[in-house]
Amino acid sequence: IRSGFAEVIYCSGKTQQHLLQIFSRIYEQEGEVLGTRASIEQYELLLNEFPNVEYDSVSRIIKIERKDKKHIGKIAVCTAGTADIPVAEEASQTAEFFGAKVERIYDVGVSGIHRLFSRLDVIQSANCVVAVAGMEGALASVLGGVVDKPVIAVPTSVGYGANLNGLSALLTMINSCANGIAVVNIDNGYGAGYIATQINKLGAGNEE
Amino acid sequence: IRSGFAEVIYCSGKTQQHLLQIFSRIYEQEGEVLGTRASIEQYELLLNEFPNVEYDSVSRIIKIERKDKKHIGKIAVCTAGTADIPVAEEASQTAEFFGAKVERIYDVGVSGIHRLFSRLDVIQSANCVVAVAGMEGALASVLGGVVDKPVIAVPTSVGYGANLNGLSALLTMINSCANGIAVVNIDNGYGAGYIATQINKLGAGNEE
Amino acid sequence: IRSGFAEVIYCSGKTQQHLLQIFSRIYEQEGEVLGTRASIEQYELLLNEFPNVEYDSVSRIIKIERKDKKHIGKIAVCTAGTADIPVAEEASQTAEFFGAKVERIYDVGVSGIHRLFSRLDVIQSANCVVAVAGMEGALASVLGGVVDKPVIAVPTSVGYGANLNGLSALLTMINSCANGIAVVNIDNGYGAGYIATQINKLGAGNEE
Amino acid sequence: IRSGFAEVIYCSGKTQQHLLQIFSRIYEQEGEVLGTRASIEQYELLLNEFPNVEYDSVSRIIKIERKDKKHIGKIAVCTAGTADIPVAEEASQTAEFFGAKVERIYDVGVSGIHRLFSRLDVIQSANCVVAVAGMEGALASVLGGVVDKPVIAVPTSVGYGANLNGLSALLTMINSCANGIAVVNIDNGYGAGYIATQINKLGAGNEE
Amino acid sequence: IRSGFAEVIYCSGKTQQHLLQIFSRIYEQEGEVLGTRASIEQYELLLNEFPNVEYDSVSRIIKIERKDKKHIGKIAVCTAGTADIPVAEEASQTAEFFGAKVERIYDVGVSGIHRLFSRLDVIQSANCVVAVAGMEGALASVLGGVVDKPVIAVPTSVGYGANLNGLSALLTMINSCANGIAVVNIDNGYGAGYIATQINKLGAGNEE
Amino acid sequence: IRSGFAEVIYCSGKTQQHLLQIFSRIYEQEGEVLGTRASIEQYELLLNEFPNVEYDSVSRIIKIERKDKKHIGKIAVCTAGTADIPVAEEASQTAEFFGAKVERIYDVGVSGIHRLFSRLDVIQSANCVVAVAGMEGALASVLGGVVDKPVIAVPTSVGYGANLNGLSALLTMINSCANGIAVVNIDNGYGAGYIATQINKLGAGNEE
Amino acid sequence: IRSGFAEVIYCSGKTQQHLLQIFSRIYEQEGEVLGTRASIEQYELLLNEFPNVEYDSVSRIIKIERKDKKHIGKIAVCTAGTADIPVAEEASQTAEFFGAKVERIYDVGVSGIHRLFSRLDVIQSANCVVAVAGMEGALASVLGGVVDKPVIAVPTSVGYGANLNGLSALLTMINSCANGIAVVNIDNGYGAGYIATQINKLGAGNEE
Amino acid sequence: IRSGFAEVIYCSGKTQQHLLQIFSRIYEQEGEVLGTRASIEQYELLLNEFPNVEYDSVSRIIKIERKDKKHIGKIAVCTAGTADIPVAEEASQTAEFFGAKVERIYDVGVSGIHRLFSRLDVIQSANCVVAVAGMEGALASVLGGVVDKPVIAVPTSVGYGANLNGLSALLTMINSCANGIAVVNIDNGYGAGYIATQINKLGAGNEE
Ligand SMILES: Nc1ncnc2c1ncn2[C@@H]1O[C@H](COP(=O)(O)O)[C@@H](O)[C@H]1O
Ligand SMILES: Nc1ncnc2c1ncn2[C@@H]1O[C@H](COP(=O)(O)O)[C@@H](O)[C@H]1O
Ligand SMILES: Nc1ncnc2c1ncn2[C@@H]1O[C@H](COP(=O)(O)O)[C@@H](O)[C@H]1O
Ligand SMILES: Nc1ncnc2c1ncn2[C@@H]1O[C@H](COP(=O)(O)O)[C@@H](O)[C@H]1O
Ligand SMILES: [Mg+2]
Ligand SMILES: [Mg+2]
Ligand SMILES: [Mg+2]
Ligand SMILES: [Mg+2]
Ligand SMILES: [Mg+2]
Ligand SMILES: [Mg+2]
Ligand SMILES: [Mg+2]
Ligand SMILES: [Mg+2]
Repeated sequence: IRSGFAEVIYCSGKTQQHLLQIFSRIYEQEGEVLGTRASIEQYELLLNEFPNVEYDSVSRIIKIERKDKKHIGKIAVCTAGTADIPVAEEASQTAEFFGAKVERIYDVGVSGIHRLFSRLDVIQSANCVVAVAGMEGALASVLGGVVDKPVIAVPTSVGYGANLNGLSALLTMINSCANGIAVVNIDNGYGAGYIATQINKLGAGNEE
Repeated sequence: IRSGFAEVIYCSGKTQQHLLQIFSRIYEQEGEVLGTRASIEQYELLLNEFPNVEYDSVSRIIKIERKDKKHIGKIAVCTAGTADIPVAEEASQTAEFFGAKVERIYDVGVSGIHRLFSRLDVIQSANCVVAVAGMEGALASVLGGVVDKPVIAVPTSVGYGANLNGLSALLTMINSCANGIAVVNIDNGYGAGYIATQINKLGAGNEE
Repeated sequence: IRSGFAEVIYCSGKTQQHLLQIFSRIYEQEGEVLGTRASIEQYELLLNEFPNVEYDSVSRIIKIERKDKKHIGKIAVCTAGTADIPVAEEASQTAEFFGAKVERIYDVGVSGIHRLFSRLDVIQSANCVVAVAGMEGALASVLGGVVDKPVIAVPTSVGYGANLNGLSALLTMINSCANGIAVVNIDNGYGAGYIATQINKLGAGNEE
Repeated sequence: IRSGFAEVIYCSGKTQQHLLQIFSRIYEQEGEVLGTRASIEQYELLLNEFPNVEYDSVSRIIKIERKDKKHIGKIAVCTAGTADIPVAEEASQTAEFFGAKVERIYDVGVSGIHRLFSRLDVIQSANCVVAVAGMEGALASVLGGVVDKPVIAVPTSVGYGANLNGLSALLTMINSCANGIAVVNIDNGYGAGYIATQINKLGAGNEE
Repeated sequence: IRSGFAEVIYCSGKTQQHLLQIFSRIYEQEGEVLGTRASIEQYELLLNEFPNVEYDSVSRIIKIERKDKKHIGKIAVCTAGTADIPVAEEASQTAEFFGAKVERIYDVGVSGIHRLFSRLDVIQSANCVVAVAGMEGALASVLGGVVDKPVIAVPTSVGYGANLNGLSALLTMINSCANGIAVVNIDNGYGAGYIATQINKLGAGNEE
Repeated sequence: IRSGFAEVIYCSGKTQQHLLQIFSRIYEQEGEVLGTRASIEQYELLLNEFPNVEYDSVSRIIKIERKDKKHIGKIAVCTAGTADIPVAEEASQTAEFFGAKVERIYDVGVSGIHRLFSRLDVIQSANCVVAVAGMEGALASVLGGVVDKPVIAVPTSVGYGANLNGLSALLTMINSCANGIAVVNIDNGYGAGYIATQINKLGAGNEE
Repeated sequence: IRSGFAEVIYCSGKTQQHLLQIFSRIYEQEGEVLGTRASIEQYELLLNEFPNVEYDSVSRIIKIERKDKKHIGKIAVCTAGTADIPVAEEASQTAEFFGAKVERIYDVGVSGIHRLFSRLDVIQSANCVVAVAGMEGALASVLGGVVDKPVIAVPTSVGYGANLNGLSALLTMINSCANGIAVVNIDNGYGAGYIATQINKLGAGNEE
Repeated sequence: IRSGFAEVIYCSGKTQQHLLQIFSRIYEQEGEVLGTRASIEQYELLLNEFPNVEYDSVSRIIKIERKDKKHIGKIAVCTAGTADIPVAEEASQTAEFFGAKVERIYDVGVSGIHRLFSRLDVIQSANCVVAVAGMEGALASVLGGVVDKPVIAVPTSVGYGANLNGLSALLTMINSCANGIAVVNIDNGYGAGYIATQINKLGAGNEE
């Protein structure tokens, strides 16, 4: 496949018929299949047809995954708060599905910055860092300042009022004065996990 | 005076005649006078009439100041970068004019966070911290997380593109998840210096 | 603790398990605990485990509080209308929890400005004023003009149409031409109560 | 003429030829003519042809006006600061040109609200009040609360940073919780003067 | 009363207790009472206590009104489409409650402009015109061009997509190049009815 | 050529060398060439090399055009005010260059709607109408309501304050409730002229 | 009829009584009738009165249509993804109702651009192309680059986060650097189908 | 150095004294130095002191560079138009300074998409692709769809009107439905070049 990875299903808003059809097609072609933003109802629908389907209610990822998968390299997925974990899990599980090793470093935002510094070793040893943060999104800047690998920043819609449903965090991250940061859409854990996997693959090349 | 401090002149856009008149009136009433956002031309105009007028081209503050002033308490004025210094000086010099002791801790933004941590002692000993930052404005959040005194955040228009002339930094600061932060207008060093002086005065009460 | 006050729980969106766990931990560590943005359901959950938990449905604050607390200084919490009271109560009760004395001056907005002036004495005697207002948020400017202590302005999402869910009030407050005003996030009574407590503590220092 | 008043020229951006032509045509038809947003250069151009043309560099209004005009009723034009005076003069002089009596009450913004209250009598005696204010624009709300005649609010672009070139003041005024306020475009003194004249004419009907 | 009219209740979001209390107080003081944005539930609540209360589900106005009221002058309330009628009725019924005569000219928007022109006589005979329109809000401009009395423009949230919940119509109206237009908040029929009544009263002065 | 028309040069911001090179290339290939947004300086540069180059300072179009061109069909280009004429001329001259017959109907905006109706015959006889308007942009809606051919709406940046440099007019036009309207970018006369030519060509098919 | 086509009902938000009345009137006048944005409930309501009414739950179009209709010309309706199909169907069925022949080319967005190129023949043979896309809306630009007929672009609200409910796609399309593109409101399949029909009619003129 | 690369000077707005000082310090420490956003005047200033300084007026990069540098891997820097080249050169030259091999593929935007496809081989062979585009920014999406390596998207401020100075292109890129895209600030060629270098280094690891 041109894009290097199998097609992924964005389940949100798909009709039952449409979802079943595309899920089946990819499963047949690839022997495994990944869906994001799936609801419980969609899980129950697919479970009827595919008893081996797995669903994680935090990340809302649904999948059938080959079991013999090797996980290479290292991606560090960090969050500012606990409310950012669903987005982070979407990133982490996407990356794992595509064969990356993932380290989770959650709840290390700037209001408790010592927690971040106590985990710096593992963060700095990754090929790529994913920074997931809502509200003011300052975590990405702090990470950009202390690691020399690419940081993929994911603004989340966590917060209220002038957070503008995540737009404020997005602007924070886009304007970061730290080096080596690029940004994906609000709550787009999937997109971050995908590009982080591409980067990690480059770094882990000789492992394969 | 009800607001506790003498009237201050916002020089920007004032006509020559208007500026001279208000400057003279306050000087007569108070024996000293402070103006912000003054141009070189306005300085030259006032210098003709008031040979003891002083002008600082960085902060663009113009003043005649009584020399016997006591400076009390401590305000820490911090900036993220060097480009934020003009706004910080407006804050610092306003606070000094109104009788506060000011510590300047400049160029300690998140892309070089170790510089901030090496100055933490002096920052934590102040009654009030002023955090001046443009681009993504993450400095305020980091400071809010490590001091237990009020942090007055000043977004600056420093940056380009999606900084939206300072609006992005303002949003970052308003959404901060750290405790004890309140925000003034973009580039409003004066306003930050003013409220910081009010806070510092409360803290330094027994010094007077 | 570095930030001077015990940790506070932002209950909104927390899972049952997560809430119980963090509530218990803080209660054990501190002997008291404060949560904001709690729902009735979260109250019922915590009540099962902690029969002494208290819930206020207006402010949506949940807490177990030590009874022997001394309240020092004075914070004046003002609202423009009655619809702003929930946000004002979040501020007031946060400040009281952290040991401040609070005066409530509600429903004194600019459309009935005589009510404000009839309460000016008590407002002017406070160490810090909290101004809570939605719609056009003009209350903060009026207060800034008549008090010489710091004013913490809280825009609320009260209003409709071009209030942009509170953004208009926020902009009004940030642009205020009155001296001594700084602003927190829309509906962020907690944040205002917190920084007001820090300021009040500086002013009430010799009381302690 | 259907709209009740003679046509007015918006001079800004008109070519020399275009301006001369339209100015001549209206002067011939009406025996007098009013132009807004005129530059010094445009004044000099018209002065060549019309020695009796008058230009006011504050309001940027250019006109030839009949001398025997009767001024009826009363419009109160108020400003928050001195920087708002050019817009207020555009309103005042437009209203006077169309035959209204105008009271100017300038520099009575909320940061010096006692100045406003000391002029309340004259304001309350007008048929219509024009409230001109930049920055946070709170003046309109205060006026709306204390007069029982229509208030036409004019936001100005005076201010900086989050004033968004006058948009913040416009939003303040549109969201006002006071009764009897309607709003025109940013810096649109002309528009306010025009509709105020229409309202004043209704109120002064029996004078004519 | 200073504002010339009795106090009006904005029912939206009021608690049952609060609503009953304020409704009773005004009814006792004035012998009549007007509430806007009332729900069916609030109507049923008030009906229990006040059997003579009236509710209109289109305008969502609730009231007890004196029966002997004289209606003076003329206000023309126009809408662009049928979906704008609820806002127009809020304006019309507010104006009628305060003693104005109202002509309703509904569904005369620019996509069927001949319907507007066929009603021009009655529109031009009013003291004040209220223009209610959503989507692109062009009706206000067209009316401003053909009447010589004040036009109060009310943008509505009718529309979808780039209507930005009424903000687009508001901007259209604020930028109108027609003379004699001023604007109130999105969906603010009440505010338009109020100021139109003030204007109408000036024009109908000699009727009283 | 795939797009049916020769390549057009967007001159704004092009270096001298770059402009000369591309102008020459197209002239050689096509025997004629069209450039938009050209400055006087760019005209003088090209005049040195191409004595037959023509420049129109209103539309800022620069061109060498074959003289024997047949103009087919009919496009009506309308403007609201005189300040919109430069954008309208960019549209008209683009359409004429590509072989369309153009009728100019300028200064027929809604504040003088009778001027529009007096020209309705010629407008309704066109294959396509281009509506050019700034400020509130209501012209497009009025045209959409009275013609049964496609209306291409061009918002202009003419206006001030809340016109948001043309964004308000764009929103007006996008939200139009009249049928048969589609919109191009602010001040994009070229784009409107181009698509109008494509539409006109379909309608004039049998003329060729 | 002036606009060339029968009136269409925008069902969304219409009361039962209002809908029935207008539906009946048009059906009587025209012998057929088209409604957009209809709900299931509205369908059931109309079915009671008109047993021959048809409803499509994807496009939410409700209609009674004459059976002997000739379909002329060709419009190509393209979508980027499957989630854009409801909007595309609103466009397609509107165009078919008004007598156009429609080719559906769905799910040919830029992330699978080869699918678009494999259908280029049919797209290039149409008189008009409708490009329906959400998220980043790049499809319109790609189509504009490869066809020489007018492209009507319809942004959809499909997406999340910084898609701003379709505003991002709208901006993409308005700024397109490809030639021959004009834009309608977000999700306005109806508007696109209408103007496409007008264009197609011009192109298919000699077929009739 | 922690961030793996030497410090870079953002020259814009730096005073002469400040620039000289920091330039000297880095040159001494590193033996080479890179500055971005430099003006001609700043070049002349530095040339006085450093005769070996080099300046490129397109990218506005100023530098003294070691001559023996090895360039590894491959980064493909693509632009949509020629106006995007300055930003692309900032990216390319930054990457080259930090040791990357760069392929420039300029002027391959969607309005001439065949030019892009003719260069696909070299683009697909890179470790990282930088997509530089203004106006509607669709290039990034097209590239994301045809390469399986990370795409760093750089929106530029090229365009006018609703391009919102680059914000529209930024939104397009952030919302891209293609996989493997992350975005930096508007016109931030430097930031894109930096992170592309980090990614390229991972991919070229075994070359070193
Ligand atoms: N209502 C509130 N608004 C903003 N911040 C809050 C609020 N309540 C608590 N917080 C802060 O949020 C932090 C907890 O966030 P979390 O880790 O998500 O529970 C606390 O330390 C408080 O500083
Ligand atoms: N300062 C102003 N702001 C807004 N509209 C104005 C102003 N001055 C004049 N006008 C209106 O603009 C119209 C003239 O526009 P124009 O045809 O472009 O000269 C006049 O009829 C006035 O109604
Ligand atoms: N989906 C739609 N989006 C925008 N306009 C529509 C739509 N459907 C119908 N219309 C237009 O709305 C008009 C009817 O509006 P109304 O008078 O509110 O029913 C019709 O004449 C159509 O031109
Ligand atoms: N064109 C640029 N855009 C954004 N950041 C830059 C640019 N050039 C340099 N930088 C960063 O800005 C930092 C220097 O900022 P300053 O301390 O203000 O000179 C450097 O460490 C770079 O990371
Ligand atoms: Mg880094
Ligand atoms: Mg703190
Ligand atoms: Mg004050
Ligand atoms: Mg009033
Ligand atoms: Mg009028
Ligand atoms: Mg039409
Ligand atoms: Mg094309
Ligand atoms: Mg890809």
